[in-house]
Amino acid sequence: MINSIKESPLYPIANPKSIAFFGASNTFMRMGSIMLSSLQALGYEGKVYPLHQTEKEVRGYKAYSSVMDLPEVPDMAIIVLPTEIVCQTMEDCGRKGIKHAIVVSGGFREAGPEGASMQKELEAIALKYGIRFLGPNCLGVANPHIKLNPTPIKVDGPPGFVGLASQSGSFITQIFNYLYRHGMGFSTALSVGNEANIDIVDCMEYLGACPNTKVITLYIEGITRGKKFIETAKAITPRKPIVALYVGGSEAGKQAGLSHTGSLSGPNEIYDGVFKQCGIIRAQTLTELFDFALALGTLPRPRGNRVIIQTHSGGPGATAADSCGRSGLTLSKLSPETVEKLQPLIPKTASTANPVDMTFSKNPSEDYFNIPDILLQEKNADMLLAYFVSPSLFLERTLQEMGVPTESIPTEADKLITGYANTFFSLTKLHPDKPIIGFTYRSLQEKLVRSLLDRGVPIYQDPERAARSIAAVLQYYKMRNGITGLDC
Amino acid sequence: MINSIKESPLYPIANPKSIAFFGASNTFMRMGSIMLSSLQALGYEGKVYPLHQTEKEVRGYKAYSSVMDLPEVPDMAIIVLPTEIVCQTMEDCGRKGIKHAIVVSGGFREAGPEGASMQKELEAIALKYGIRFLGPNCLGVANPHIKLNPTPIKVDGPPGFVGLASQSGSFITQIFNYLYRHGMGFSTALSVGNEANIDIVDCMEYLGACPNTKVITLYIEGITRGKKFIETAKAITPRKPIVALYVGGSEAGKQAGLSHTGSLSGPNEIYDGVFKQCGIIRAQTLTELFDFALALGTLPRPRGNRVIIQTHSGGPGATAADSCGRSGLTLSKLSPETVEKLQPLIPKTASTANPVDMTFSKNPSEDYFNIPDILLQEKNADMLLAYFVSPSLFLERTLQEMGVPTESIPTEADKLITGYANTFFSLTKLHPDKPIIGFTYRSLQEKLVRSLLDRGVPIYQDPERAARSIAAVLQYYKMRNGITGLDC
Repeated sequence: MINSIKESPLYPIANPKSIAFFGASNTFMRMGSIMLSSLQALGYEGKVYPLHQTEKEVRGYKAYSSVMDLPEVPDMAIIVLPTEIVCQTMEDCGRKGIKHAIVVSGGFREAGPEGASMQKELEAIALKYGIRFLGPNCLGVANPHIKLNPTPIKVDGPPGFVGLASQSGSFITQIFNYLYRHGMGFSTALSVGNEANIDIVDCMEYLGACPNTKVITLYIEGITRGKKFIETAKAITPRKPIVALYVGGSEAGKQAGLSHTGSLSGPNEIYDGVFKQCGIIRAQTLTELFDFALALGTLPRPRGNRVIIQTHSGGPGATAADSCGRSGLTLSKLSPETVEKLQPLIPKTASTANPVDMTFSKNPSEDYFNIPDILLQEKNADMLLAYFVSPSLFLERTLQEMGVPTESIPTEADKLITGYANTFFSLTKLHPDKPIIGFTYRSLQEKLVRSLLDRGVPIYQDPERAARSIAAVLQYYKMRNGITGLDC
Repeated sequence: MINSIKESPLYPIANPKSIAFFGASNTFMRMGSIMLSSLQALGYEGKVYPLHQTEKEVRGYKAYSSVMDLPEVPDMAIIVLPTEIVCQTMEDCGRKGIKHAIVVSGGFREAGPEGASMQKELEAIALKYGIRFLGPNCLGVANPHIKLNPTPIKVDGPPGFVGLASQSGSFITQIFNYLYRHGMGFSTALSVGNEANIDIVDCMEYLGACPNTKVITLYIEGITRGKKFIETAKAITPRKPIVALYVGGSEAGKQAGLSHTGSLSGPNEIYDGVFKQCGIIRAQTLTELFDFALALGTLPRPRGNRVIIQTHSGGPGATAADSCGRSGLTLSKLSPETVEKLQPLIPKTASTANPVDMTFSKNPSEDYFNIPDILLQEKNADMLLAYFVSPSLFLERTLQEMGVPTESIPTEADKLITGYANTFFSLTKLHPDKPIIGFTYRSLQEKLVRSLLDRGVPIYQDPERAARSIAAVLQYYKMRNGITGLDC
């Protein structure tokens, strides 16, 4: 295990001060050019040295025809060239003294025997010069915290806390937007490709030491260094959660993985056993992978599994109760003191059983502070699951009916909703040891929910997803105690 | 069983030519006023007669202080009044000769013994006058096909093919937007509340006969008329699919249902048995309920379970393969003819195993016609599952790089994407007996996907949801054959 993040071979790759870029040109529709354009778009502040045979300038950067001509030894090289010239380029980098690289080019082990032998050659060259590299057949790295994104798609949203080590490059570059829409962002994401030199274990180790990473997510088609994987994961999970999506367990997934990165997979049961042994939470789908990451990265450690559901509609309350039941959560019975405090705030047709179904509130603003505040004070409950409908639906109509001029309605509604979001958010500070989770059937991009997501309140698009994510958090702390011997 | 939709007591309720509206006023923040305002917003074209003690006009309609003064006998009454005066109002409606009603007001059986006795009284009055009614404690009906929406929230999007009979009113009014975002709309949605007179079985029967309804969805907390439910469902499922979400099976769901509508639930196993016996597909969550409805309402009957996955990224392909495997689908092996036809269109690093991973396409437009067309011709496959990334991501950047003026880029990209959508959609006409399904991790509201959703191509936000929905379609036709003895 590394003692400091700087000992990791990935440190200069994820935090380079300078990059030699092979394969970008002034012709846009080439992978290298697209990747360099993304790097520019996010505003990377380090030095970039494009290598090009003929162009004097590439995308505004001074270009060099040979790596030997570069004015310094860059921290790393990014290689997006035809397979046939990758080995020679790596050799050149070695001679220049470059010690780290990302090989994006494909056509190696995953492409058959000829490619496999080229990969062997690449490995030998790296060994000779002491070069550590990601790939080949990968998309490398994204570290939005230092505005580093040399992947084909632009980053959406701010940097976040989700670390990803992935045997699929798509699950970095094609997921920026997904994460942003769901209230997350990458801390650092690493695409390992064929793992010729740096593998997923190295990435996990790096993310374990990365201060921006609160949760590690893994996308796995097959693990090679099993023993080292277990040892590393075991060292990380007592202080940082790891969630893994493993797709090689089914026959279909196994075949797909084989033709994708050529990795060898094993039966589901073996991976289940390995994950359990290391304290890794297993996700079955990409949706679950990031749903669990959101809860694990935002919620405090729950004291138990007793939940109160706050709703103003019976159906959403009942489906949430059903989902909680299925996920192993229990619904607390409200104490008489809580019921007494609630009664003045809710209509007499409301239910103070759990789910607490307010039907409607005497004053809508109570939904966002007084009522949940009372529920969070309940001694028989460990957490709150709240149902959100878009308040703008009623607010805009009410303001219209009140005669507020049409052009002022959006601003007025906005102000009120910002107020609701602020008060609801303040509950997380008032009750720092009780998880607060939401669910909605509206779009996550509507003002109230978006504003809460942006501040780290996890809100899901179905109570099932919320309940399963809470269960993942409970599972994590349970396993963590099993490993470290602490109390939950 | 009814022989014609007009025999159903729900026909005048879902298709009224005139409505007596009790409980709306010129004060907006009352449930009745909000509901009348929704009715106006959608542009209901029938007659509306608000009843009000003092106002001469309510929301622009001439108001009446007594139902006896109405110039005609309305097709139905909507009652949104305090519990205490509901019985008297029903009595008045009866005397006027009104034969159909929706009782929105709560405070009856679900509120305890006193409410239960009021409900008995209400039932007796209805019986005396031969009134059939929905509720109490319900939201009634939405029939967007005739612009009828007297529920508290406005309708989003066009009318659709999803029929819903629901023991939760929220799952009508709060789901308009959800359905629209996911490419669906209600044909007719019915909220049954306490089912004092018309119950969920009557609603199912009505939807079975409703020509706009392609799929019936049910939200169930507990069934009272078990035998009649089975008989009715059995008569419907051989010609129209029914999907049911039942939440009363877990202890938590059971308790929640009890305090919601006072309905009695039973163990999951019993409901599973009932559903199976009738050919009803069971959904575990609201997401599944409508995911299944989308596939069942849009896809042709598949000839078998062999799927081809089209992707240009290994990770999404492998997760889709894994999901397909988990859902009981098999991945077809491509025949040599198919591989031969594909080869000129894809790079040599692409995979013609299944998933077919194009990595990138020589010409992006091939993704939307030529490649899927070849895959749909494959004799060893019964359907196509295609992965979608937003083409605008690359198009906009490419157009920018090509020097297209910034202000023209959105229009130019839009034109290209419309072309892609048109050609992809044409595949459903060219291959009418092979289901085509999509998945994406981008927002469903982006141009290409939205345009396909609007034309009835089901696209899901995770391959797991797609695969499970396909499995539901297969399950339906399997059950249907079991019931009717037809071949699949």
